[in-house]
Amino acid sequence: MLFLSDNAAAVHPRVWAAMQAADAPDAPYDGDALSRDLDARFADLFGRDCAVLWVATGTAANCLALATMCPPHGGVVCHREAHIEVDEGGAPGFYLHGAKLMLAEGSGAKLTPDAIRAVVDPIRDDVHQVQPHAISVTQASEYGRAYRPAELAAIGALAAERKLGFHVDGARFANAVAFLGCSPAEAVGPADALSFGCVKNGGMSAEAIVFFDPALADVARYRRKRAGHLQSKGRYLAAQLIAMLDGDLWLENARAANAAAAAIGMACGERLLHPVEANEVFVRLTAAERDVLRAQGFGFYDWGTDAARFVAAWNTREDHASALAQAISSL
Amino acid sequence: MLFLSDNAAAVHPRVWAAMQAADAPDAPYDGDALSRDLDARFADLFGRDCAVLWVATGTAANCLALATMCPPHGGVVCHREAHIEVDEGGAPGFYLHGAKLMLAEGSGAKLTPDAIRAVVDPIRDDVHQVQPHAISVTQASEYGRAYRPAELAAIGALAAERKLGFHVDGARFANAVAFLGCSPAEAVGPADALSFGCVKNGGMSAEAIVFFDPALADVARYRRKRAGHLQSKGRYLAAQLIAMLDGDLWLENARAANAAAAAIGMACGERLLHPVEANEVFVRLTAAERDVLRAQGFGFYDWGTDAARFVAAWNTREDHASALAQAISSL
Amino acid sequence: MLFLSDNAAAVHPRVWAAMQAADAPDAPYDGDALSRDLDARFADLFGRDCAVLWVATGTAANCLALATMCPPHGGVVCHREAHIEVDEGGAPGFYLHGAKLMLAEGSGAKLTPDAIRAVVDPIRDDVHQVQPHAISVTQASEYGRAYRPAELAAIGALAAERKLGFHVDGARFANAVAFLGCSPAEAVGPADALSFGCVKNGGMSAEAIVFFDPALADVARYRRKRAGHLQSKGRYLAAQLIAMLDGDLWLENARAANAAAAAIGMACGERLLHPVEANEVFVRLTAAERDVLRAQGFGFYDWGTDAARFVAAWNTREDHASALAQAISSL
Amino acid sequence: MLFLSDNAAAVHPRVWAAMQAADAPDAPYDGDALSRDLDARFADLFGRDCAVLWVATGTAANCLALATMCPPHGGVVCHREAHIEVDEGGAPGFYLHGAKLMLAEGSGAKLTPDAIRAVVDPIRDDVHQVQPHAISVTQASEYGRAYRPAELAAIGALAAERKLGFHVDGARFANAVAFLGCSPAEAVGPADALSFGCVKNGGMSAEAIVFFDPALADVARYRRKRAGHLQSKGRYLAAQLIAMLDGDLWLENARAANAAAAAIGMACGERLLHPVEANEVFVRLTAAERDVLRAQGFGFYDWGTDAARFVAAWNTREDHASALAQAISSL
Repeated sequence: MLFLSDNAAAVHPRVWAAMQAADAPDAPYDGDALSRDLDARFADLFGRDCAVLWVATGTAANCLALATMCPPHGGVVCHREAHIEVDEGGAPGFYLHGAKLMLAEGSGAKLTPDAIRAVVDPIRDDVHQVQPHAISVTQASEYGRAYRPAELAAIGALAAERKLGFHVDGARFANAVAFLGCSPAEAVGPADALSFGCVKNGGMSAEAIVFFDPALADVARYRRKRAGHLQSKGRYLAAQLIAMLDGDLWLENARAANAAAAAIGMACGERLLHPVEANEVFVRLTAAERDVLRAQGFGFYDWGTDAARFVAAWNTREDHASALAQAISSL
Repeated sequence: MLFLSDNAAAVHPRVWAAMQAADAPDAPYDGDALSRDLDARFADLFGRDCAVLWVATGTAANCLALATMCPPHGGVVCHREAHIEVDEGGAPGFYLHGAKLMLAEGSGAKLTPDAIRAVVDPIRDDVHQVQPHAISVTQASEYGRAYRPAELAAIGALAAERKLGFHVDGARFANAVAFLGCSPAEAVGPADALSFGCVKNGGMSAEAIVFFDPALADVARYRRKRAGHLQSKGRYLAAQLIAMLDGDLWLENARAANAAAAAIGMACGERLLHPVEANEVFVRLTAAERDVLRAQGFGFYDWGTDAARFVAAWNTREDHASALAQAISSL
Repeated sequence: MLFLSDNAAAVHPRVWAAMQAADAPDAPYDGDALSRDLDARFADLFGRDCAVLWVATGTAANCLALATMCPPHGGVVCHREAHIEVDEGGAPGFYLHGAKLMLAEGSGAKLTPDAIRAVVDPIRDDVHQVQPHAISVTQASEYGRAYRPAELAAIGALAAERKLGFHVDGARFANAVAFLGCSPAEAVGPADALSFGCVKNGGMSAEAIVFFDPALADVARYRRKRAGHLQSKGRYLAAQLIAMLDGDLWLENARAANAAAAAIGMACGERLLHPVEANEVFVRLTAAERDVLRAQGFGFYDWGTDAARFVAAWNTREDHASALAQAISSL
Repeated sequence: MLFLSDNAAAVHPRVWAAMQAADAPDAPYDGDALSRDLDARFADLFGRDCAVLWVATGTAANCLALATMCPPHGGVVCHREAHIEVDEGGAPGFYLHGAKLMLAEGSGAKLTPDAIRAVVDPIRDDVHQVQPHAISVTQASEYGRAYRPAELAAIGALAAERKLGFHVDGARFANAVAFLGCSPAEAVGPADALSFGCVKNGGMSAEAIVFFDPALADVARYRRKRAGHLQSKGRYLAAQLIAMLDGDLWLENARAANAAAAAIGMACGERLLHPVEANEVFVRLTAAERDVLRAQGFGFYDWGTDAARFVAAWNTREDHASALAQAISSL
């Protein structure tokens, strides 16, 4: 009964089917019919013009998006615990040619306008200090918290006021939308670009960078090739993304994962470190308690010394989730 | 009847099967059993220790390999028509942080020790000029020519003498080995690293970087993550590579493609721009002649103004190849 | 009566004289007799082999030194208020190709082994997190605090244990040595490289990078040229550095500046934010008090909202310093 | 009697005087009165608005200028023998973050619209190939040839048509203007930026980047700091540049150097490899002949195996030049 991560879960059967249906010959790179269909499909989803590029990983998606908004001598404001800061092996430094991540605080790994101002306001407007050029938030956050539409609007307003780009890392965007019950457009707010996750949600090897400003996409296309991320059989990536959108599979999968996490979270009571709003559950557990759970066959990661993280995936079985909930309750 | 490229051909059924067999949960990134098996599998193939990393594209493979051999202030000697110079969107400049490609001449896009010396010998040994740190050759070359083992040995000897790294771009390594009929070890020579192609040979989205010097691989692992090329469901990439090695599928596929190319080449006589040693055929054809062929249903790329390139893939049908051969003969 | 900074003070007459004596023709770049003499002169100073490169700025010195110790995918531990983090316009990101500064805490902008461990120990040893490769400390620190020899030895021991490079930013190294009264070797500790400041101490446009590991210097020479810092009339830079060493002018100037700062500091009592150990005085002063001082003709920078910074230079007049001391006492 | 290079000649007395006059305290970096005067002084010179930054070297000037015109994924067209390609240690790769130099041919190291088209026209407009973003020419060229105003206008027209930036490396701009007898504006043509040389023309350590598009300068200011080229005592650099402009010292010095070169060139007849239009003379001379000259006390560099280069400086003595002319005539 594994709750280690959603990032290694099996590929959804409808994704497999779509990939196999793409086996017929077509143009290489992103010249195939499926890749060419992405802009329209995501425009439908978000209700506005989009330019969409597939890439293999969220790290590439985040960094290619940010590289269109921030020059090498600039900075990107993000949370101190943002994935781009903590878990991408320094990829922003590589893709942005040495630009700086400017670290803000915020409960639940979420930024607020005040937290952003606390970072950017003290920066002197002179050449001795790196100037901010963009903001990046994660929806849902690294602690499974969802930004409400009004929160994103407020951050977007600040970005506009300060002439900063606005990027949303949506590795678990589906989980956030499923939780919020709002439209995808509301859940991304006035962002310039979104890393739209698929791999953690039943995909195999495709993420989408959704640019709401087509001029950014024009630059990103060159950067994607330059980063070795323009795969020649791109239709197999486009197929994964389209399979996700077809019949709202992306939301169906996210709802299943969220439901499993919610069931676990319900059992945790005071142990919960963060409200459960997506598919991750952070739980205060002593080492001895973790041993007990592992002895019962539950797999999960420690989170620091006094807690654990449980992640549900699209295919987490209900009986596994309730077994875990039961086990935690019984501690 | 498409002879456009091998880079968009369908995925081989045995590769599909291996990928689907990998659907069971396993550790993320390259911690799964298949990824961990790659070193041993390639060590068997080459008869010496290997450290092997999967990546999604040949561009990433080439550039990650070269980045381990050449510092940002150095240079890499390659052919003027090398893929890394002509067709990778400047990726070497990105991955090597501004290092320089030093362009050598050579018939059939092949380098020789003399051609390399002609580039490096005039370089003054001072800080005003970029110093060479590595050599990169393509096996088979961009014109479908295969380096003989003795040729690679001679280049390797020069590399050793000058303390230069030695990289082989093997996007079509299988085709070269199939043509040469030698061992994989002989076909790669005394290289430090090989980009082992799979996508053009019936794979979907996996190439291998085979390091013969494990210390280089240790650096490349960090660089791969930093480039956003460490996929979380890496087992689906490892599965493709292992499927290729199982039962020598890689050679079976390459032999099929080579045979189709050879059949076409036989029909071209004096029109051939280069001897056919792999799966590409470069043919002198006027615009009018190309129109005739296209009118008969053949798809291919122009090669400059007076020639065309035909590429056979693992699944090129024999009747298509002979139809093309017939059509060219009849011009 | 200016106490704004030592970084714009006049050039010392003996530096002028040495520059003018260098006017005779000699080899360009660093091939002249003065430049070639630097290794020996600094070896005398530090009592061990040195390889010394001049550059125009402390930013270039710091970043060229660090670039020899830390690969693009690595990190450098420094204080949160280190000059390289706060005041160099992102130069480390540029010179180190996107490597990361890892920010440690510490009173008086000084690092301790514990503070360094607090940063590096939580870093997981995997490719998802940037790994530390070097430590950089500032002697004297950004708050004018001097590291004692034992403190440097302890940091050096930690660096050795963790296989980290060790760099000292010595923009005000002379002030630290003058304060400590120890040998230059003791004041730099077991560092691999030192940015030896000259501009703030009566020079015009030359700083020295002193490498105690000659292999690092060999790389830095290429990087200096590549950064456009290899001036063709390098003898005028070497002349400045040698003028500083001749007759210990560097210490004479630093002692003068330190004495002026000490005199001011003595008058500040409880107002002092940091003990005065070099030529900078950080003083708690209200806006109204600062107005009073400015009305009396004193020039200085605000330091946040409730304090001010006063910097003495080699040529700060004693009567100016005592006038300031008097004025602060009278507030 | 040294004809090695102009790059290590003594500093002109009027430059010395101006530097010493700058010794009074003023604002640091480029906030001093002299630095703030540069825009107006160069605007007078060129008859149009300018934004001017000093830097220490021509390499920094060239690369900072180009970095404002070409993104990391782009390319800069220059001559195969351009200084930025051959003699700057890979600095363009560093400053432009891996952008590519695209090498064109041309007699006398001069570009023509046709030569530029021959490079850029074959580039496919797709992401697989690096796209050109700028053109860089050298005035006077690396072989001492001056572009005529009409030639620059034609290149500028092509740049405008193709939306390419246009940079002029004017390390020896003074020599070109002195030779052409035209206005500085005509000698720079419709360029976006000029590296205005001073060091080779009697300066010590200052070159100017003259931006004719102020938006480019705004970016370059951040990049200059980030490259460690913002010196804190910038007034000593500004003083050099202003000394050059005062009373047209820059042209006086260049005329003297050109006259000496012309005198030597006159003696060379058929031996001349290039017409003498600036202060460099390239002369066909056998090894034996070079030995003869060196035995007579002449210092100069070999140029390949069958030629030599003689460079005159602002302070080359007439009797030395005529002695050399005599000696060559007598061979």
